[in-house]
Amino acid sequence: MKTFYYIPFYDLSIGDGFWKDRQRLNADVSIPGVYKRFNETDRFNCIYPGWKKPTAHSHIFYDSDTAKWIEAVAYVLHRHRKEYPELEKLCDDIIDRFAKRQQANGYLNSYFQRHPGKKKFHFRPDHELYCAGHIFEAAVAYYQATGKNRLLVVAEKYADHIYKRFIQKKNTSFSTPGHEEIELALFRMYEVTGKERYKEMAEFFLNTRGTVKEKTYKMFTDAYDQHEVPVRRLDAAEGHAVRAMYLYSAMADMARIDGDEEMFAACERLFNDAVKKMYVTGGIGSDPRGECFTVPYDLPNQTAYSESCAAISFMMFCRRMLLISCDVRYADVIERIMYNNLLSSVSLDGKAFFYENPLEIRQAELTRSRTVKPRSGFMGLQSNLPRFPAWQRQEVFSCSCCPPNINRVIASIGDYVFTCDGETTYLQQFISCRTEGITVETNYPIGGKISIKGKDYGKKYFSVRIPSWCRSFVAQLDGKKVTGAENGYLTVAVEKDFTMTIDLDMTPKYVRCNPLCKENRGKLALVRGPVVYCLEANDNGDLDAVAVNIKSVAKEKESSLSPLPALETVGYELSSSETYYTGESEKKERTLLFIPYFTFANRGVSDMKVWINEN
Amino acid sequence: MKTFYYIPFYDLSIGDGFWKDRQRLNADVSIPGVYKRFNETDRFNCIYPGWKKPTAHSHIFYDSDTAKWIEAVAYVLHRHRKEYPELEKLCDDIIDRFAKRQQANGYLNSYFQRHPGKKKFHFRPDHELYCAGHIFEAAVAYYQATGKNRLLVVAEKYADHIYKRFIQKKNTSFSTPGHEEIELALFRMYEVTGKERYKEMAEFFLNTRGTVKEKTYKMFTDAYDQHEVPVRRLDAAEGHAVRAMYLYSAMADMARIDGDEEMFAACERLFNDAVKKMYVTGGIGSDPRGECFTVPYDLPNQTAYSESCAAISFMMFCRRMLLISCDVRYADVIERIMYNNLLSSVSLDGKAFFYENPLEIRQAELTRSRTVKPRSGFMGLQSNLPRFPAWQRQEVFSCSCCPPNINRVIASIGDYVFTCDGETTYLQQFISCRTEGITVETNYPIGGKISIKGKDYGKKYFSVRIPSWCRSFVAQLDGKKVTGAENGYLTVAVEKDFTMTIDLDMTPKYVRCNPLCKENRGKLALVRGPVVYCLEANDNGDLDAVAVNIKSVAKEKESSLSPLPALETVGYELSSSETYYTGESEKKERTLLFIPYFTFANRGVSDMKVWINEN
Repeated sequence: MKTFYYIPFYDLSIGDGFWKDRQRLNADVSIPGVYKRFNETDRFNCIYPGWKKPTAHSHIFYDSDTAKWIEAVAYVLHRHRKEYPELEKLCDDIIDRFAKRQQANGYLNSYFQRHPGKKKFHFRPDHELYCAGHIFEAAVAYYQATGKNRLLVVAEKYADHIYKRFIQKKNTSFSTPGHEEIELALFRMYEVTGKERYKEMAEFFLNTRGTVKEKTYKMFTDAYDQHEVPVRRLDAAEGHAVRAMYLYSAMADMARIDGDEEMFAACERLFNDAVKKMYVTGGIGSDPRGECFTVPYDLPNQTAYSESCAAISFMMFCRRMLLISCDVRYADVIERIMYNNLLSSVSLDGKAFFYENPLEIRQAELTRSRTVKPRSGFMGLQSNLPRFPAWQRQEVFSCSCCPPNINRVIASIGDYVFTCDGETTYLQQFISCRTEGITVETNYPIGGKISIKGKDYGKKYFSVRIPSWCRSFVAQLDGKKVTGAENGYLTVAVEKDFTMTIDLDMTPKYVRCNPLCKENRGKLALVRGPVVYCLEANDNGDLDAVAVNIKSVAKEKESSLSPLPALETVGYELSSSETYYTGESEKKERTLLFIPYFTFANRGVSDMKVWINEN
Repeated sequence: MKTFYYIPFYDLSIGDGFWKDRQRLNADVSIPGVYKRFNETDRFNCIYPGWKKPTAHSHIFYDSDTAKWIEAVAYVLHRHRKEYPELEKLCDDIIDRFAKRQQANGYLNSYFQRHPGKKKFHFRPDHELYCAGHIFEAAVAYYQATGKNRLLVVAEKYADHIYKRFIQKKNTSFSTPGHEEIELALFRMYEVTGKERYKEMAEFFLNTRGTVKEKTYKMFTDAYDQHEVPVRRLDAAEGHAVRAMYLYSAMADMARIDGDEEMFAACERLFNDAVKKMYVTGGIGSDPRGECFTVPYDLPNQTAYSESCAAISFMMFCRRMLLISCDVRYADVIERIMYNNLLSSVSLDGKAFFYENPLEIRQAELTRSRTVKPRSGFMGLQSNLPRFPAWQRQEVFSCSCCPPNINRVIASIGDYVFTCDGETTYLQQFISCRTEGITVETNYPIGGKISIKGKDYGKKYFSVRIPSWCRSFVAQLDGKKVTGAENGYLTVAVEKDFTMTIDLDMTPKYVRCNPLCKENRGKLALVRGPVVYCLEANDNGDLDAVAVNIKSVAKEKESSLSPLPALETVGYELSSSETYYTGESEKKERTLLFIPYFTFANRGVSDMKVWINEN
């Protein structure tokens, strides 16, 4: 099996521009903000033995939140260590607590160690291996970033303990994790340390899954955590979306590392199914009940669960798939998520986050019945303080997996820019950066111009992804026009020194959704390049009666919200004095101002729509 | 205040045709069927003292179910007494049980008398006055039909007891009924017996409502049973739909009887609001939570609660409004309900009934998640045996208010045909019938021709409603063409003997729904005259990707389901290989066969749609 490799983020220098600004905000505001909230909720005190202030209720996944935060900081430190000494100190402090908390036999879980009455490795849904996996990832990242191996030593000791219990002695109450994560973490440990044992452990968990009867939460079936059948026989993206994509990521790792064609075929089926269950923003997991996938084209907008972690995990899966097959669809999905669901999951000031990412907000839904008393609760059918659907981002959640996940992926966004093989470098995502032999300059997605300069470039070819949304482009190599993208890539033979420019046509367009998606029948979404746009009531007043006119050309308007333009079109407001009537509704022309989806919910609570009716 | 009167059904002889067939089915199949189910569930044994077979759980509203059944039989007996001696015997037996059950002080409620520990007139939601009201209506109807007054004596004794407790002594725990009904029943007692006390009682309940703090079910607000404000200040149709419409019916009675303009103004506001909350089938009450109204144009199709009793109660309200104001909209609503929600609420073979009346069935909703375990329960978010949304009619329900309500309104449908004042008879609904001086012949709604013959007709004018759906008609009076309907009525000066013909254009048309109804944006419903049509998967296969072509002329096809034609059009099937794309979806022409909505769900379980996408 041919494989590719990627240029890790730490071998790139991100240049000034859109993503550098996002990374700075992430490092200067979001990451410290998350630390503050985690500290206030005692996540770190829960680790440290003999902590003073008891939290009312610590959670089984606190260690994973903490570990992901460490991982995010590690990514910041890797290229900017001198600028963030305080963050490094905070990490060292937490790592110190983890090391002190670790049992002599290697077990490490702050929740279970605070509740010694609870049996370890007994109740599969209790996230023990999930927390372990994130500790492993943090350990590897921190070591690579700083050279400090204290957490790595802790991680390896814990991994050995898990090996002993799950593989040697098999004296646990379950064989595979409930929430997948440790598999991909173990592959990471393997690829960084070179130790075969971690590959063996990852493959044990992957190969065992679906071959033994396992427990899960009572209200869910075995589809919930993807253990109905052996993983190579999975053929639909089902169950909890984050669990699913962490599993598929590990499956893709295994396919690549072992040249496992059967595993890769399963991954392809799962990808092909997942894209039918993907929101236009790149979000996945439409069902709040279980944060799950449902069926193809079932994509409700207001109740879109579309968990931030889920979209990020879909990016992770797609990145791994690109290392096996340079298929433009994987990079297109990464881009769709990057510029929509990912960016939208954090506020423009970097302080607050979305857990669920709705594609429509209609506050009137809450008041459609004056008869039923408001009740808060999971799914909050009618609730005064709706967590769902979310109208505003929050600074912390009791289950706070999303913020540090957002932290870590933004800090390491460079991982997604290039893939390579022996002969070619593939520019997958358009971010200003510099790496050995290549400089990329672009103000994408504000503009569509990308300039690539090779200097002492060591390969024969250079290849640029032409996004599937792009209808036309103009490209030049060393001053001469080049054409002929094939399968979504424009590949040119290059000299050691070369200059290539691509100008992608960013004219805004309306897109439709597959007609089997009943929610979006007769509706259109406005997009400009990779960026999906939306209407907010902030700019447009009541959205209920609005219709777009597909013939109206969108005019770019300056916007204070972001560097991207707002888009102004002329649509309609529909009305009638009747409930039922023949003929057309009354139509009044109405100016509509669209803003990038990722900028919504930054000016207080406002109704919002991505999908707008045509009639 | 000018008022009108109506010709009661028992002063009409329904002629051969559509409604006579429905009435025969009702009397020969539905009414005996309901008796059988009621008997099997021990409703009658629960009344009779010393009954043998205890039901696991009798219900607080059993007496009302029984009373409505008696009322329905009374309507049948009134004009067909000789044909149904067995039904009369069954009624007499039940009435005997009621009489024997009645306490010496007049109280009568089989549920409370079986549970002597429960305090009477203590917990307002317990339906005591509701059951009383239905007993009163049954008593009056049976007396008018047969001359037998045994139940009327029982009713009057009970009414006196209620008077003593609620009005004289005021020693009950609540002042007004939870579920309205007794008010309109008391007005009926008043108008039949002439006894002022019953008017006084009705007006006490109506005037007191909303002026004192009253309890209702914990999960609902005071909007639920319309007691937030005095009734003359109500301005929106809110709360439980049946309660609401029974209240508004009594308010209309009071407005007419007392010439109460303020009360009538409130009724008008309530009507104007209710029609914005009315399904195209005439159903009302869109919210399963509380069987309630919500807000204007909130009309979900699959989860339409649209309780059969609610639509019937809306008919009752509109009939009363026509006695104050000959406004075509009231008669149009009656017609919309008659030919859609009402007819659809009983199966074509007369045996089974709908409680909720959905406007869309999509079985795949139940299987959209393989992850969440099926659970039955109220609202059955996901349930193996969905009561809701209902896919098939049932022969009995534990709360079985709908079947006998359907029984009684079909049996007395003649009440809706004519209204009159001193100078004019108004033909409101088109049913073949004969009454003093007038014969109407029509095969409506199969055809649009109506023929009216006057013979020794005693008034100066005859007026025919021209339904609001009707674009054009041709009319003749004594061979001469007449035109010029005014405000929905074609009124002509007539001789003692006259012949009038009206031919309403029944060309099928597509209707739209107000654009503020987000569920129906971009959708059309096909109607032919008053009859709404739908698509069933039975005839059309999978409905998900279907679109109508508004330009396609509907061809009438013979149908074995009913005397009405099926309608064949050419629509489209939409598809795409992508999830998101620019341009149009792929369109394939597809023949679509529409059937009358009221005939759906008579050929087993099948997906169904009333509102079809245009794109």
